[in-house]
Amino acid sequence: MLTYPLLFEPARVGGLTLPNRVLLPAMVTRLSGEDGRVNADILDRYVRYAKGEPGLIVVEAMAVHEAKSGPLLRISTDECKPGLTELARRVHDAGPSKVMPQIIHFLKIARSGWRQLVADLTLDDIRGIVEAYGRAALRARECGFDGVELHMAHAYTLSSFLSARNARKDAYGGSLANRMRLPMEVIAEVRRRAGSDFPVGVRFDGEECIKGGYSVPDARQIALRMAQLGVDYLSVSAGGKFEDAIHKPGTPLYPYTGYSGDRCMPGADYPDGLNVYIAAGIREFLVQHGVRTPVAVAGKISTPGLAERILAEGKADLVAMARPLLADPDWPKKVRDGREDTVIRCVYGNVCKSLDENFRKVVCILWPRGALQAPASADTEPPRWTRREPLTASVHDGRVSLKWVKAEDNEEVRGYAVYRSAPGEPERHIGSNRAWQFTDADVVAGTVYAYRVQPYDGAGNRGDFSNAVTAEIPVG
Amino acid sequence: MLTYPLLFEPARVGGLTLPNRVLLPAMVTRLSGEDGRVNADILDRYVRYAKGEPGLIVVEAMAVHEAKSGPLLRISTDECKPGLTELARRVHDAGPSKVMPQIIHFLKIARSGWRQLVADLTLDDIRGIVEAYGRAALRARECGFDGVELHMAHAYTLSSFLSARNARKDAYGGSLANRMRLPMEVIAEVRRRAGSDFPVGVRFDGEECIKGGYSVPDARQIALRMAQLGVDYLSVSAGGKFEDAIHKPGTPLYPYTGYSGDRCMPGADYPDGLNVYIAAGIREFLVQHGVRTPVAVAGKISTPGLAERILAEGKADLVAMARPLLADPDWPKKVRDGREDTVIRCVYGNVCKSLDENFRKVVCILWPRGALQAPASADTEPPRWTRREPLTASVHDGRVSLKWVKAEDNEEVRGYAVYRSAPGEPERHIGSNRAWQFTDADVVAGTVYAYRVQPYDGAGNRGDFSNAVTAEIPVG
Repeated sequence: MLTYPLLFEPARVGGLTLPNRVLLPAMVTRLSGEDGRVNADILDRYVRYAKGEPGLIVVEAMAVHEAKSGPLLRISTDECKPGLTELARRVHDAGPSKVMPQIIHFLKIARSGWRQLVADLTLDDIRGIVEAYGRAALRARECGFDGVELHMAHAYTLSSFLSARNARKDAYGGSLANRMRLPMEVIAEVRRRAGSDFPVGVRFDGEECIKGGYSVPDARQIALRMAQLGVDYLSVSAGGKFEDAIHKPGTPLYPYTGYSGDRCMPGADYPDGLNVYIAAGIREFLVQHGVRTPVAVAGKISTPGLAERILAEGKADLVAMARPLLADPDWPKKVRDGREDTVIRCVYGNVCKSLDENFRKVVCILWPRGALQAPASADTEPPRWTRREPLTASVHDGRVSLKWVKAEDNEEVRGYAVYRSAPGEPERHIGSNRAWQFTDADVVAGTVYAYRVQPYDGAGNRGDFSNAVTAEIPVG
Repeated sequence: MLTYPLLFEPARVGGLTLPNRVLLPAMVTRLSGEDGRVNADILDRYVRYAKGEPGLIVVEAMAVHEAKSGPLLRISTDECKPGLTELARRVHDAGPSKVMPQIIHFLKIARSGWRQLVADLTLDDIRGIVEAYGRAALRARECGFDGVELHMAHAYTLSSFLSARNARKDAYGGSLANRMRLPMEVIAEVRRRAGSDFPVGVRFDGEECIKGGYSVPDARQIALRMAQLGVDYLSVSAGGKFEDAIHKPGTPLYPYTGYSGDRCMPGADYPDGLNVYIAAGIREFLVQHGVRTPVAVAGKISTPGLAERILAEGKADLVAMARPLLADPDWPKKVRDGREDTVIRCVYGNVCKSLDENFRKVVCILWPRGALQAPASADTEPPRWTRREPLTASVHDGRVSLKWVKAEDNEEVRGYAVYRSAPGEPERHIGSNRAWQFTDADVVAGTVYAYRVQPYDGAGNRGDFSNAVTAEIPVG
């Protein structure tokens, strides 16, 4: 008996059967060179994900065109195909996951903060975008991928056409029907070039999360139309727009620096599953129309309990997890096999996001220092504390400061998970750290908090809890 | 048998019993003069609301201090008391609603765009704020109000202290405990001055909806602490911050011009009940802690069906409606008495918001031209069309343009409600207009839409539906 039966139920996506409902959404790695080719690090990254056995791996966004854009994969010419073919093959060899590339077109940005707008594009430019998507989708098929995902979310070209802030005055802007024109042309061309039997997914924003942007009412119409055109799954994201991005002088605008960026990659200050209502609102509308195209939801969903509840409540069909699978690619397999307690938990500290912003290779802060990939270990021996009562707490300036004496392990202590409880509040994981300390600033006066710390190793084996310490936050 | 039994169930708030669960939240009227005194227009406005019989009327924010701020009510000196006493008495005389003033402190803003920050305040300033709130709360009691609501939401002083962007370096900033210090001091002082038996509510943001702002996790802690300190109800709002406001040169910054302003006063592009998950997340946390302090929810809730469902699902205890009650103050009474079909529906066009932004008297676009108050009428005769098949539709540029020939009424045709359906989509109200036309830009290609229009008069009596017309949006 599975503890999370819905999460591990196979899902139909077009003609494909995904082995389970965990989806790894596209997440930039910055591991490719400026040439945009698949290299050994990229292969290692996706093989590592495949070993964890998510239902679907969506490979990071790769450009359908030749524009310059730092270390970003490309599917823009036939020269890209050998590497991508190798990638698809290696992922398939490593496990049962299906794998699709996300294909992207983006407009130009400059270090000055200038950016090209959809209103700047000529009709020839637009025709070129349609053709580039079609050719890229065909390449995806020829490389042996199981399908292709069209990037229509966040700050990029197709999303900017869908946007309520699309300022074009012609047939590609203004009304919702016009804003959808280019995305719909792209879908038709992708179908024409890659074949009507080749699975096509679309990732798009359910809410732009910017002033004057669209929200669920438009997203429902967009989703319905795409489903009617035969899109095989709809992956709902939110935000990540240029319009509210904060320009850092001398660098190109990074579309995840404003509030919409927070909603796209929510940090520790946001609630779990904060965008679930958006996907649910869209899926409800599709179901009302008799459409059962699978809807994927994303946004701070890291526990199998929450994922299963979302599926049970009919709020989505697939659950996308980016940062939790970066932290621990074995998440799906561990949870399926009843080893949930060995999952290494994402702490939503967004170090990965900041690496991306600075064009640096994207790794997880919870991995061993210097590692380019999540390590794997078959070790089963948990860490041990080196001292009785290793944990102490102190309070100053309305913050609790925890310190502990280190633990040891037969391989390596990977980190320490910090747990907190308060009167009436069940104990919960509030963060993890590789170092021997943690500061909790999220406390209120007049409350007594209790803390325990638990060391874990690279395989996720957890040691004993430390002693419990309490800290009272003074009133006044 | 009531159709909406939970909505019309009395609610306990401290020692008070509200006759039902419809709450009119504080909404600026700009009807007072620069002197901040109650005048005939203000009295008329609140008596009009009282005749509609919501459970609780929260009178628009009134300043606890003497700072200059255009036409805004004041409770800052004893000279304010006669007018406020009259206001409380007149509301009580008009119906069963309970009535409380919302009391506010705000920091200085200038036409240059400059604004005072919480970090600029001295400890003396802070002491002054605490004292001003205490004195104002006592005045509220002395004036005969049923309680007082402390404004801790949006762009104002106490909210700015609660904010995760509070940049103070001392005991009033930094950690959550420190950010809560001044609000908690205010609550204690209000209790001390106004008496522990005087009902005190707090309105605060459940999410700031700005970059670096707080969200539900902090809001839960804030709410729990306030409940523990004996606050009698918690009214949850969202956004409305200065941090993402757009400065219009030559005018003071208006805190509802950015995305956070949209989330605070969502327009037609946003989904219904878009902030319900925030109040629900807070209430769930309180219940887990055994705390049953009533939670009010707000944000585009205009139909009794949605309001009842929110209560039935335990997502809130009170339902706040500002713009729907501005459009039709008789909403509570009509719905209770089974006359839901005569409610004049808010169209979320935010003309009221734009009047506020420009310091003009806040009225509803659906009222008769020039009216300062929602008219009342006991008329029961509905409008009639003056021609058979009055409605026509045309399509251009991806938009549907509707035109109709006017209807007539024994009193006055107030407006026309526009309904739309599509294959698989139930017919729904998409807007209303006083004029004889409507443009629907929210359509997608390849779909056939059907429209009907229904005239209504000042009492909300609806005439017959017009003929139905269809419009097909072309593909390509």
